[in-house]
Amino acid sequence: MEVQIAVSKAKKYASSTSGDTVEVIERPNGGLSIVMADGQSSGRGAKWVSSFVVRKVISLLAEGVRDGAAARAASDALFTEKAGKVSATLNILSVDMSTRTLVITRNNPAPVLLALDEDIKLLDKSSVPVGIYRDTRPLITELPLQTGMTVVVFTDGIVHAGSRDGRVMEADTCLQSILEDGDPTAQEITDSLLEHAIKLDQGRPVDDTSVIALRVTPRISENMVRRMVVSLPIGL
Amino acid sequence: MEVQIAVSKAKKYASSTSGDTVEVIERPNGGLSIVMADGQSSGRGAKWVSSFVVRKVISLLAEGVRDGAAARAASDALFTEKAGKVSATLNILSVDMSTRTLVITRNNPAPVLLALDEDIKLLDKSSVPVGIYRDTRPLITELPLQTGMTVVVFTDGIVHAGSRDGRVMEADTCLQSILEDGDPTAQEITDSLLEHAIKLDQGRPVDDTSVIALRVTPRISENMVRRMVVSLPIGL
Repeated sequence: MEVQIAVSKAKKYASSTSGDTVEVIERPNGGLSIVMADGQSSGRGAKWVSSFVVRKVISLLAEGVRDGAAARAASDALFTEKAGKVSATLNILSVDMSTRTLVITRNNPAPVLLALDEDIKLLDKSSVPVGIYRDTRPLITELPLQTGMTVVVFTDGIVHAGSRDGRVMEADTCLQSILEDGDPTAQEITDSLLEHAIKLDQGRPVDDTSVIALRVTPRISENMVRRMVVSLPIGL
Repeated sequence: MEVQIAVSKAKKYASSTSGDTVEVIERPNGGLSIVMADGQSSGRGAKWVSSFVVRKVISLLAEGVRDGAAARAASDALFTEKAGKVSATLNILSVDMSTRTLVITRNNPAPVLLALDEDIKLLDKSSVPVGIYRDTRPLITELPLQTGMTVVVFTDGIVHAGSRDGRVMEADTCLQSILEDGDPTAQEITDSLLEHAIKLDQGRPVDDTSVIALRVTPRISENMVRRMVVSLPIGL
């Protein structure tokens, strides 16, 4: 089988820097982790916070620390650094090849969408961001990797899309229609969701918005080639 | 304009772990860096070495350290850790938005291919791997970002492709024909080069092989959306 991971990111309208940070790192015992943080407020301050949290997490994961412990450490480090005055949401999505599981770690009020084929579940138990309280713990969901699995994680740019005009984005309904349209790639999922959010915001995103999709497909890759593609638009 | 970066990686035939490590990281002052290391020998030992070098470099880049200084520090750290007995090749490719330049850092005997439109130059001045000598310095090439630019970087799996049968892979000739075929994406370039190498090795790569391509295209991305896609084949 093959795991596909896609990320699509857009900045808040007229903002120079996204306050969201997303990084992917190889796990020392096999597999990958993708780490996403959204720093409180927007612009450079928010970017500092989200980078701080993501770097803390990836440096710990790279040493073999488990996801839950890495999330707790990042929360404690931000709490200590900013005296509990600054928060960030944090999500970690890991393909752990030592256990052959998918590990979903969540310190984010925004839900995570988890689908098996076209059957979508919301992981929406109450969850707090990191950095505000001592001893903040993430919610963790661990599942055996299986084909047909789709996980979608996003920052609150998706939750607030359309809010300028009192509209609401139903991410689960959107995902349902994308999945029913056939066999979308991970990138088709993130692009469709982000595009829908930007449309609800009439082309001027109300917030930094990042969407991650992970799919487990039955595809057999010739020669087991791993691939990564990044595209970075540059303003003039 | 848009910067496209693609990576394609294959393992040595019948090897469980690739000794090559490639990671992408956001630069704190804007832009991206992609860091590639190939650890001496193969399998788990080589993986340890290449991870060690890449992690050292990305943690320094994340703090705003310049590429050349990060490469020197990684060399010194490996030299200290392994008493000069273990080497790794190292390449860093950075899109630095604070200077609007492309920075190519090389501690690798394998050349780097640099093309402007279809005109290919080889960066092949003698360069040593990191970790064996005190004060190892990288070769650095810094160029203003411009559309039509293509850079291709690879580990020695490409250099040695075909060697089992006394054949030689001419990476620059391959790149020339790919570029002349039209307007390839970065992923088309890395996939073609890797595929060609695996074919020369008759489907059984003689070494871990990683290829990175970076292209600067005139494409204008709608809403300045950033994208990343990763695919990870999983054996049964």
